[in-house]
Amino acid sequence: MINVLIDRIQKLEAPIVVGLDPMWDFVPGFLQERALKEYGETLEAAAEAVWQYNKGIVDAICDIVPAVKPQIAMYEQFGVPGLQTFQRTVDYCKEKGLVVIGDVKRSDIGSSSAAYAAGHIGTVQVGGKKLSAFGEDFITVNPYLGIDGIQPFIDVCKEEKKGLFILVKTSNPSSGEFQDRKIDGKPLYELVGEHVAEWAKQCMGDSYSYVGAVVGATYPEMGEVLRKIMPKSYILVPGYGAQGGTAKDLVPYFNEDGLGAIVNSSRGIIAAYKQPAYGKYGDSGYAEAARAAALAMKEDIKSCIGE
Amino acid sequence: MINVLIDRIQKLEAPIVVGLDPMWDFVPGFLQERALKEYGETLEAAAEAVWQYNKGIVDAICDIVPAVKPQIAMYEQFGVPGLQTFQRTVDYCKEKGLVVIGDVKRSDIGSSSAAYAAGHIGTVQVGGKKLSAFGEDFITVNPYLGIDGIQPFIDVCKEEKKGLFILVKTSNPSSGEFQDRKIDGKPLYELVGEHVAEWAKQCMGDSYSYVGAVVGATYPEMGEVLRKIMPKSYILVPGYGAQGGTAKDLVPYFNEDGLGAIVNSSRGIIAAYKQPAYGKYGDSGYAEAARAAALAMKEDIKSCIGE
Repeated sequence: MINVLIDRIQKLEAPIVVGLDPMWDFVPGFLQERALKEYGETLEAAAEAVWQYNKGIVDAICDIVPAVKPQIAMYEQFGVPGLQTFQRTVDYCKEKGLVVIGDVKRSDIGSSSAAYAAGHIGTVQVGGKKLSAFGEDFITVNPYLGIDGIQPFIDVCKEEKKGLFILVKTSNPSSGEFQDRKIDGKPLYELVGEHVAEWAKQCMGDSYSYVGAVVGATYPEMGEVLRKIMPKSYILVPGYGAQGGTAKDLVPYFNEDGLGAIVNSSRGIIAAYKQPAYGKYGDSGYAEAARAAALAMKEDIKSCIGE
Repeated sequence: MINVLIDRIQKLEAPIVVGLDPMWDFVPGFLQERALKEYGETLEAAAEAVWQYNKGIVDAICDIVPAVKPQIAMYEQFGVPGLQTFQRTVDYCKEKGLVVIGDVKRSDIGSSSAAYAAGHIGTVQVGGKKLSAFGEDFITVNPYLGIDGIQPFIDVCKEEKKGLFILVKTSNPSSGEFQDRKIDGKPLYELVGEHVAEWAKQCMGDSYSYVGAVVGATYPEMGEVLRKIMPKSYILVPGYGAQGGTAKDLVPYFNEDGLGAIVNSSRGIIAAYKQPAYGKYGDSGYAEAARAAALAMKEDIKSCIGE
């Protein structure tokens, strides 16, 4: 799947991924109202409004971006109906040819990680059949439990040709609280990065590994170090735009081949219609605003990463 | 909710929690067959079989144990139907008076942690209504992202009087890979423990905090240190039984008041019918076997912790 992702990135000349993180406040009023009218003030109404919102955005961007990254928390907050919308969104995006990165940040002891891996990127055996549940192409995972929380995901990646992005240095302000603490003179994120580089060797695609990393755009000097530590891992870079990362900050995340990183923007694209710059689109033009913002992001990154 | 948990532990003289981690292989053959016959080889069949299995166990143990801990990975592997069973299990356990600890190990950047918190222990606003989704009493969370991944959970705990168990030292064999690494001469798990102790002060119940910790039974010498570092935090102790922890190992996890820890057993109880010691119950007696194993665990722990 890493080969497919790289192929799409190259074809579209866009190392970008759109975060489908539909916070309730992002959903345009007319979609909220329509769903509330049909389903009342229920979780089903929220799930329906989010689905309609997502569908509009996906239709508007699927020919210009290679991938989407639904943040499962935004669906899980609406319980089972919300997760139905997550499933529907994953299915729809795949139908439209998008690579789907499930931002699930799961991890647990071995047997539970194996269950998460089966449900998100693998299959479960029921009777004589192997069934796929959520079926994302990539997922994000948390390294705190060490290799036995990660290996079950890697095993499924090998079998199913799916991929992972392991949290190394996250984009949030307090990520340094533990991740930056020094161990034998080296910050924890570097130690985790070294492990990711080792794990990455277990499942190589044509030029990059199925095992990638998450490194926030908000810490470019750390990105530069981590780029070198994990040369064969794709880096998923959150934090561009709304969280403060700029296109210039992104340069160190890329390798000399112009590859190696994919930059996420969530609210900067899906809620672009709320920004003054895209105000002319209005609520009803939220999807067109998202398309315009995605094109602008593509150009912004291209201008810094170069040809 | 920590007050309710302690009250139930004291009344039942049982500082134990039963892990509802229904791996497919644990589900007795007759329940699998019945569900497959009704729903075919589908995720719905798996979800139905797991639900029937859980219901039997919950009915058999609800008067002798204070709490259950459903491991969401085991439900999530079956996709949306599996999560419907998770919801149904949470609801049923609460109906039966059990305290429900959702073993979800979530964490993310602030806005996403807030969404997880809303969905699992809080409420979401839809139109004019505040709606509860999964509605567990406690959940487990992962500390890798630092305080801004944790604070949204704490905020909801304060508002809703719910609780957390934060991963400090996990029970799995490779937990030391990062957690044991020394920072300024102290292992990472101690540093995390010190943070938990600070966070715990933000929301105190009568005698213990709403903010607890997870420390595996498989590392008793670390448990002893962490007990002292986090005097007001309840410790959720996985790893007893199947993972190798014994009752003697549990002593250091308790405070002198006889409180401060709750010990989990999953397969040792819910799959007891597969052990030679409980073989006489057979497949059809799996629930009675679970009850017998829970009573035996209670006595085992009592014999070491004392009165």
